[in-house]
Amino acid sequence: MSRVLLELSISLDGFVAGSNVGPGNPLGDRGEDLHEWMFAGRTAEESIHFEREHFRDVGALIMGRRMADVGIEPWGDEPTFHAPCFVVTHRPHATIDKRGGTSYIFVTEGVQATLEAAREAALTKDVLVNGGADIARQFLDADLVDEIRLHLVPIVLGAGTPLFTGVRPGLRLQPVDARIDRTVTHLTWRRT
Amino acid sequence: MSRVLLELSISLDGFVAGSNVGPGNPLGDRGEDLHEWMFAGRTAEESIHFEREHFRDVGALIMGRRMADVGIEPWGDEPTFHAPCFVVTHRPHATIDKRGGTSYIFVTEGVQATLEAAREAALTKDVLVNGGADIARQFLDADLVDEIRLHLVPIVLGAGTPLFTGVRPGLRLQPVDARIDRTVTHLTWRRT
Repeated sequence: MSRVLLELSISLDGFVAGSNVGPGNPLGDRGEDLHEWMFAGRTAEESIHFEREHFRDVGALIMGRRMADVGIEPWGDEPTFHAPCFVVTHRPHATIDKRGGTSYIFVTEGVQATLEAAREAALTKDVLVNGGADIARQFLDADLVDEIRLHLVPIVLGAGTPLFTGVRPGLRLQPVDARIDRTVTHLTWRRT
Repeated sequence: MSRVLLELSISLDGFVAGSNVGPGNPLGDRGEDLHEWMFAGRTAEESIHFEREHFRDVGALIMGRRMADVGIEPWGDEPTFHAPCFVVTHRPHATIDKRGGTSYIFVTEGVQATLEAAREAALTKDVLVNGGADIARQFLDADLVDEIRLHLVPIVLGAGTPLFTGVRPGLRLQPVDARIDRTVTHLTWRRT
């Protein structure tokens, strides 16, 4: 059964990206500190294996236009996703095909229509909402997320893009997993 | 060896108290939702046992004046602390003695002097920085905390007193434990 997952790395003070996100600075200032846990202490081969495992059950991804705009170039010619990525946007754009099964498909009809397209593409696999924060909030507010996975990085950024600021008060989740892995704490909740 | 612990319940969006904290509303609006995990599903006897275990290794507590002002009355004649509580304040006040080993001792010389007094009282037991957020930030900024324990309650409050806003950017911790207990996720880090 296909689930909708939301997955982000987040700082102690609740930021999922640093300040000044833009071309050439896709994660914002010090934003790479939020993601180094994925590669730290792993060989190149182990990193590839980790990423393959990480996306194994993901049949489609969803992301915001801003994330696609700053990410598509650095993600390269054979992105790690190996699945169609549906981009929520107001500006139409032709589909961009990459090697290894990744494509960027631009949907202009809002989050609900994007989710339907992603579900259709994912078949029985999961749909992963990959960010950024604005798209994550839209999915949370519309109660479309089955499982939230946060990778809590124990640093204080001081500024950046917050995840939960602006999410409707009263959201309540059920914890289902928590474990530490070297420098990071992996946390999972489900919708109540 | 006596350690300095910081322990707080915190919402998904980073608040350790709701809005409008004041006399008669010590935890702020919906702030009690941050603490119900301590009592939910426990009998009165189990709650007493839980609290006794919880404070077993604590030889002294530290709290802010505001927390003391709104808390001393609801904490009652035999508070759960069973240890001296050192209150960081600018306004001198005579010591208040309660039953069962709890006393409120007002220190006007700042956090460092308060910590020294608390360490002396705790002997080999731990010193627990019990809040509120402003005192917690002062201890974090002065690098006085050995271990941070957050009880992450998976709700969005939307407003209130944030813990990490204003903490110096660059703070970095080491995760040492993470586990779920029914509705809450208990997280522990140490100073790096």
